[in-house]
Amino acid sequence: MRDFQLELMRYAEIIVKIGLNIQKGQTLVVFAPVSAVAIVRLIVKTAYESGAYDIYVDWNDDEIVRLKYELASEDSLKDYPMFKLKGIEELIDSNGALLFIRAPDPELFSGIDPKRIIIGNKTVSVALSEFQQNIMTKKLSWSLVAVPSKAWAAKVFPDLEESEGVGRLWEAIFKATRADLLNPIQEWEKHNNNLKYRVNYLNSKKYRCLSYYAPGTKLSIELPENHIWHGGEKINNRGASFYANIPTEEVFTAPLKNGVNGIVSSTKPLSNRGILIENFTLTFKNGKIIDFTAEVGYDALKRIIETDEGSCYIGEVALVPHNSPISESNLIYYHTLFDENASCHLAIGNAYPFCIEGGVDLDREHLAQQGINTSNIHVDFMIGSGELDIYGESSDGTKEQIICNGKWMF
Amino acid sequence: MRDFQLELMRYAEIIVKIGLNIQKGQTLVVFAPVSAVAIVRLIVKTAYESGAYDIYVDWNDDEIVRLKYELASEDSLKDYPMFKLKGIEELIDSNGALLFIRAPDPELFSGIDPKRIIIGNKTVSVALSEFQQNIMTKKLSWSLVAVPSKAWAAKVFPDLEESEGVGRLWEAIFKATRADLLNPIQEWEKHNNNLKYRVNYLNSKKYRCLSYYAPGTKLSIELPENHIWHGGEKINNRGASFYANIPTEEVFTAPLKNGVNGIVSSTKPLSNRGILIENFTLTFKNGKIIDFTAEVGYDALKRIIETDEGSCYIGEVALVPHNSPISESNLIYYHTLFDENASCHLAIGNAYPFCIEGGVDLDREHLAQQGINTSNIHVDFMIGSGELDIYGESSDGTKEQIICNGKWMF
Repeated sequence: MRDFQLELMRYAEIIVKIGLNIQKGQTLVVFAPVSAVAIVRLIVKTAYESGAYDIYVDWNDDEIVRLKYELASEDSLKDYPMFKLKGIEELIDSNGALLFIRAPDPELFSGIDPKRIIIGNKTVSVALSEFQQNIMTKKLSWSLVAVPSKAWAAKVFPDLEESEGVGRLWEAIFKATRADLLNPIQEWEKHNNNLKYRVNYLNSKKYRCLSYYAPGTKLSIELPENHIWHGGEKINNRGASFYANIPTEEVFTAPLKNGVNGIVSSTKPLSNRGILIENFTLTFKNGKIIDFTAEVGYDALKRIIETDEGSCYIGEVALVPHNSPISESNLIYYHTLFDENASCHLAIGNAYPFCIEGGVDLDREHLAQQGINTSNIHVDFMIGSGELDIYGESSDGTKEQIICNGKWMF
Repeated sequence: MRDFQLELMRYAEIIVKIGLNIQKGQTLVVFAPVSAVAIVRLIVKTAYESGAYDIYVDWNDDEIVRLKYELASEDSLKDYPMFKLKGIEELIDSNGALLFIRAPDPELFSGIDPKRIIIGNKTVSVALSEFQQNIMTKKLSWSLVAVPSKAWAAKVFPDLEESEGVGRLWEAIFKATRADLLNPIQEWEKHNNNLKYRVNYLNSKKYRCLSYYAPGTKLSIELPENHIWHGGEKINNRGASFYANIPTEEVFTAPLKNGVNGIVSSTKPLSNRGILIENFTLTFKNGKIIDFTAEVGYDALKRIIETDEGSCYIGEVALVPHNSPISESNLIYYHTLFDENASCHLAIGNAYPFCIEGGVDLDREHLAQQGINTSNIHVDFMIGSGELDIYGESSDGTKEQIICNGKWMF
């Protein structure tokens, strides 16, 4: 018999002690949906007990976001309340930590005029671009986690009644985040060591190019000469470790912006800002997306790709074994945080500067010179399956298989 | 059979159209407890439909506030997140509106070390002093309203089960705010006219002094020569009307700071920042509180009076008939917003500058010269009952009774 309260407390502990790794005297800002009040209280208590100096919770409510998209004037959608970022600026200067809690509704914006969504998305991404850069250069610790919403549970478990679906989704989240295990802190250390092993292996190989083969996919991705693979915990600018995502099963790096060629097919639905995109393909030539198809959500995919100059290139190459714990749940989560950790994936848009040597000290222009893409967006999409093979090609031309039928070969 | 959803919608409409009187193009900031999400969504919808440009909800959670008082360091209690005020500064410059929604817990802070409460209260009142001044000089429209919390309902209806108590408290709030009536907007106009009649009568009389007589009370309060009585709707600096409190039954002015003498006894419990104070007396000499007693919460009362230089003087004199709708409910609400509108009351601390002619243009020093008290706090306490008599004395020495056995004489 699983004990919900116990696993909820363990989840809060994983978030505070592993995800954020709260240091004595740190200020924590939590972005959370009002529906998550129970676990937010647990997180706040655990964080104060771990030595947090002060904690602000910046609550949000999806229905109120939707009301704005439905009812506010177009001018209002172009306006971002810049004062909301003041607190985060102070955090960066003072060694703070950020926690993002999501209770996603995969179809929040269905029925909203797409033109209004474009305007709103652009406003947000422009307003947050400096903030995004601070995040990507790890000027502070942050973690992204998720909790069930009723709408999300109904999407993942369409045949179950509401409360049962929510309960099952909690169980799936606890399992995916190791909150169901007896000593989650130790389990996370073990898991981190395993990811480090993959990262070190790939970094020692310095592959020049990766080749992907699967039904509907034949893709070649060149890697920058000085690329770095990452996975598991991150280290911020002040030397403290944290996990940007809970759960995390991926190892990833940045592709060479102009070195992507071929076609790739999605293997899971993509929910982007409340719109679903399903069964889509992207065709690349010299890095650029020159063609795309989608059985569902074509317009939404088009909007993503057309966001800005960098949004028709990719910025992330991530490897995840098809037998990861999340993958083995056999669920489609309709949420990137879980689906990306069950599947090899790529991301449209911005690359993480820390994926090349010295990258965090470069501005956009110098990153571009090194073949690193920049954009105001970063949208992961899933391409992994039990039929995916990936080969790594070294600079001397030798090829070896690193993923076979979706699983690690080393 | 009363219809909860209908009355809830009427309440939202009263708040938006009467309380805030939202103007086309205005930005609204709502401060609300996460537990009030249902009515906040209704308010947001109604406000957008009434022409609001943008709406931000700044949510809060009492349990997280309490966790800070329990667990954060003392230094942290001395720190106010000033970035939280940035948005309000912009609002003042741009003709915004503020809505404060409370779901009070009358005993939120019971058991917390009082020293920590003093520190926290001082931090808040110093940080908000400029904001308070902007509010008091009506540089923007604002409204304060309340919704039930479980803890509040349990205090008002200690013998009822939780859900029944919450339901009864909603009913009482709908009744007190006229949301139970068929045409609440018209009813508020009628009510406002009635309050205006009292205000005009009192302003025409220009009383020099009020004398209070009741069991345990024998008090004389001088009024400034150029005092102004207020009641019902307010007009902000840009000429738009609003109601600072929903409900509101009071007419009020400022006392002469040094002109209060005698003793006054409380007639209702006072819940101040989560601590209850009951059955207390204050003794005044030349305006100053020179002695006080309290059967419950003596220390909390002492802390209020000792907050700053102005907190041992009074700043408000308010008249409410003992047969007001709220008073006739015969409930003790343990919350100022309702109890003060069921009872004649006074306030310890700051006076409203608009209660004397030209007062909004005066700084603290010049207000003091006119005999107007200033303080970082403003704490109302109830002294009305069915046994209270009040006499007004004109400058020519003539006396007339204005309140007899708690009821208006004119």
